[in-house]
Amino acid sequence: MTRIDLNCDLGESFGSYRIGMDEAILPIVTSANIACGFHAGDPAVMRKTVQLALEHRVSIGAHPGLPDLLGFGRRQMAISSQEAYDMVVYQIGALSAFVTAEGGKLRHVKPHGALYNMAAARPDLAQAIARAVYRVDRELILYGLAGSELIKAGEEVGLRTASEVFADRTYQEDGSLTPRTEPGALIEDTSAAVSHVLRMVREGKVRTLGGTDLEIRADTICIHGDGEHALRFAKTIREQLMAAGVQIAPL
Amino acid sequence: MTRIDLNCDLGESFGSYRIGMDEAILPIVTSANIACGFHAGDPAVMRKTVQLALEHRVSIGAHPGLPDLLGFGRRQMAISSQEAYDMVVYQIGALSAFVTAEGGKLRHVKPHGALYNMAAARPDLAQAIARAVYRVDRELILYGLAGSELIKAGEEVGLRTASEVFADRTYQEDGSLTPRTEPGALIEDTSAAVSHVLRMVREGKVRTLGGTDLEIRADTICIHGDGEHALRFAKTIREQLMAAGVQIAPL
Amino acid sequence: MTRIDLNCDLGESFGSYRIGMDEAILPIVTSANIACGFHAGDPAVMRKTVQLALEHRVSIGAHPGLPDLLGFGRRQMAISSQEAYDMVVYQIGALSAFVTAEGGKLRHVKPHGALYNMAAARPDLAQAIARAVYRVDRELILYGLAGSELIKAGEEVGLRTASEVFADRTYQEDGSLTPRTEPGALIEDTSAAVSHVLRMVREGKVRTLGGTDLEIRADTICIHGDGEHALRFAKTIREQLMAAGVQIAPL
Amino acid sequence: MTRIDLNCDLGESFGSYRIGMDEAILPIVTSANIACGFHAGDPAVMRKTVQLALEHRVSIGAHPGLPDLLGFGRRQMAISSQEAYDMVVYQIGALSAFVTAEGGKLRHVKPHGALYNMAAARPDLAQAIARAVYRVDRELILYGLAGSELIKAGEEVGLRTASEVFADRTYQEDGSLTPRTEPGALIEDTSAAVSHVLRMVREGKVRTLGGTDLEIRADTICIHGDGEHALRFAKTIREQLMAAGVQIAPL
Repeated sequence: MTRIDLNCDLGESFGSYRIGMDEAILPIVTSANIACGFHAGDPAVMRKTVQLALEHRVSIGAHPGLPDLLGFGRRQMAISSQEAYDMVVYQIGALSAFVTAEGGKLRHVKPHGALYNMAAARPDLAQAIARAVYRVDRELILYGLAGSELIKAGEEVGLRTASEVFADRTYQEDGSLTPRTEPGALIEDTSAAVSHVLRMVREGKVRTLGGTDLEIRADTICIHGDGEHALRFAKTIREQLMAAGVQIAPL
Repeated sequence: MTRIDLNCDLGESFGSYRIGMDEAILPIVTSANIACGFHAGDPAVMRKTVQLALEHRVSIGAHPGLPDLLGFGRRQMAISSQEAYDMVVYQIGALSAFVTAEGGKLRHVKPHGALYNMAAARPDLAQAIARAVYRVDRELILYGLAGSELIKAGEEVGLRTASEVFADRTYQEDGSLTPRTEPGALIEDTSAAVSHVLRMVREGKVRTLGGTDLEIRADTICIHGDGEHALRFAKTIREQLMAAGVQIAPL
Repeated sequence: MTRIDLNCDLGESFGSYRIGMDEAILPIVTSANIACGFHAGDPAVMRKTVQLALEHRVSIGAHPGLPDLLGFGRRQMAISSQEAYDMVVYQIGALSAFVTAEGGKLRHVKPHGALYNMAAARPDLAQAIARAVYRVDRELILYGLAGSELIKAGEEVGLRTASEVFADRTYQEDGSLTPRTEPGALIEDTSAAVSHVLRMVREGKVRTLGGTDLEIRADTICIHGDGEHALRFAKTIREQLMAAGVQIAPL
Repeated sequence: MTRIDLNCDLGESFGSYRIGMDEAILPIVTSANIACGFHAGDPAVMRKTVQLALEHRVSIGAHPGLPDLLGFGRRQMAISSQEAYDMVVYQIGALSAFVTAEGGKLRHVKPHGALYNMAAARPDLAQAIARAVYRVDRELILYGLAGSELIKAGEEVGLRTASEVFADRTYQEDGSLTPRTEPGALIEDTSAAVSHVLRMVREGKVRTLGGTDLEIRADTICIHGDGEHALRFAKTIREQLMAAGVQIAPL
């Protein structure tokens, strides 16, 4: 039976600042990527989000990002692979301590934002991040963009990987996501998004913007929980996948 | 045979900024308290300092502080006990990941600066910190001021503790350190400091500024490595302790 | 004719994080205290808030706070008076540049949160802050708690001051605000708050929690804009003051 | 008579961390670029550095950088031109307040590190920075790499500009500096550096690595003060320029 994991970024609040609808999205997803205090999140938010994820029996992952709270980790920075290694080790450790303190276990790591994008394209960063994850805990699953350098690096170092696909994003001829700044980047029609996702999950194929069919591996779908529209979209995707006989479960 | 641990704060550099003479002090001490990125230290410094400590076969501890790089963690902040718990869990985890990645094991935790002083006096903070350490890893040894609330809290929660004494500081009638702002706070004469330390280590006693003899437990001595004078002082203390038949070893 | 200024803290968003209903509160108030990037706010938020305040022809002030974004500037820190001086000069300058760049003029300074409370009670901090304001621009008006050390220090240094009162807070026998943690601290009934404010504004008197009448100077009222309830309360206060013949105008 | 300005980055310490030999370099230079707290510097350091510069009668400039203390502002970040504008306005304002408080006047602005390099190459950033400087104070002189987009943008917006040249760096065919990572980037021989500088200052010409003569405008020379070697080099450059009849003076 076909299986798929639904993952969502959580714990992105900071101090007095609130972002996200963590309690509403948790019943929908099977894996939570929790921010680690660099691009979002703080120690109190991390503890509460870990507790919430454990209550909802959702698989917990670290979501390390660039040290850029102001830019929410979305601005690329010219970091070295050593710097990437160091910031990933640090953030995995910090989150992992909260999971341990609450009696749980950290299951995966998914880089955030600009770090995710850079790790998809730059082999040196991808290898550094994969090595960081492996050296902290080789049981951890490394999440990355399907077909990316990060997935390649994870496999090479000996980690289990999870290839991530996007329900609301189109793909280019080279398998990369169409940048948001370009026309046609987003799939706004929900039923088109559902067909797009179902094809990736069940057939392992995606039709590019240019009309070609590419092979794609889909282990996990990126779900957003940052608004009423996103929540409704997430629920629909989940329901349609289940209706199509796909099992929703963590890796 | 009488044993004593010599501990020193290390890894306090940050980015392009250098503080401390870590390589020079490591052959003298038996335990390293490594800054965790809040009051000092950064991910790269933490990795390098852990590597250095492992090379010197020195016992490794986390040295969590207040989130105040500008004030080097020395300015008291009105934090809640929950905030203390959270910041300690976070920092232990971050450092621990580097130790694990390098094949070592984290052995102890010693709060830094204002957090150390606040934890010595406030039972609620002391208990929160002890609980944080315990919940992350109950094998960790909690370092605190001899006779302080932190040591009490560590014992109550079931942790092994290390009572810390100071070679160059005088004590008041209630067993607390004479504040640096008061006359007679520092023992500047090295041979007086040596006698002071030897009495604490071998007899478990200290003569207060007022002339009373107090009982004091001495498991570990705080050593400074931030200058030529401090280094020479540290070497003398070590040599004199060994000459007096005291074994220098980690806990 | 009796006049009063209504001031409100604005520009407290940060990066992707939103706090406050700045556009809704601006038509109600006459002075805006704009966060300067230490406890809240960032350069982009500062620019936009200055533009918004100028559009609404509201008087603009700097709202400097402690360097504690995580705690929103509400946690007291053991800072020296020199540190207070330096952080206030810095923040006034930063905000002032945006006001100048937009063709406006900075009119006042009101410390935020813990810095406001510390400056109300500690003469050394109060004097340092007053001196900072004076040395940057002696035309600036210094806002502080009515009867506080900050108002005293402002007058001594030669600044114009604005004594601030609170519509929804009770006062103690010594003229200080009843701490929020104590019973009776808040005036929750709107009509009671209106009477309380009107008496301070028109008669210069306040009845303490203990029942005594104290003299109080009221130049400006602190208004909150962080929620629907606060907005309605603010509107009512403004309307009732106008109905009672009080002129609502900046200093 | 030929004139040249010698400028140096100052005030790069932070909290307990010390960088630079500010007191030693001040007698050698004529302009000080003072860090503003984003990539280096803090409010106390800014105040002290402004005081020091005023004592030495050196012209004072703001030295704004990227918000990256860990990377010392040397790591490029994918910022928008609006973000560049905002961070430059903020930092000029903050430094300017200290200059005003000490009775001085801010004279120039020179972006730091990665911001300097990005502003040299990207017209949108260059224009945003030039506009930021102009809108805060149109009397300010904008420092930038000779021949760069920043100098072009400064002139277009109506600012006075200062074209900066480097004594110890070679130039490429397109007039840009040879990257430090490439062979031949540095001029290590002091007398070669002196000839190189003298030619730029007196003849307005530079011989590229490839052997071509390019025209170059030299209003100011970048001087380093971060070590004994740098200090000696700076002194030699100054002495040789004076011996050659060049007047050393701020713009």
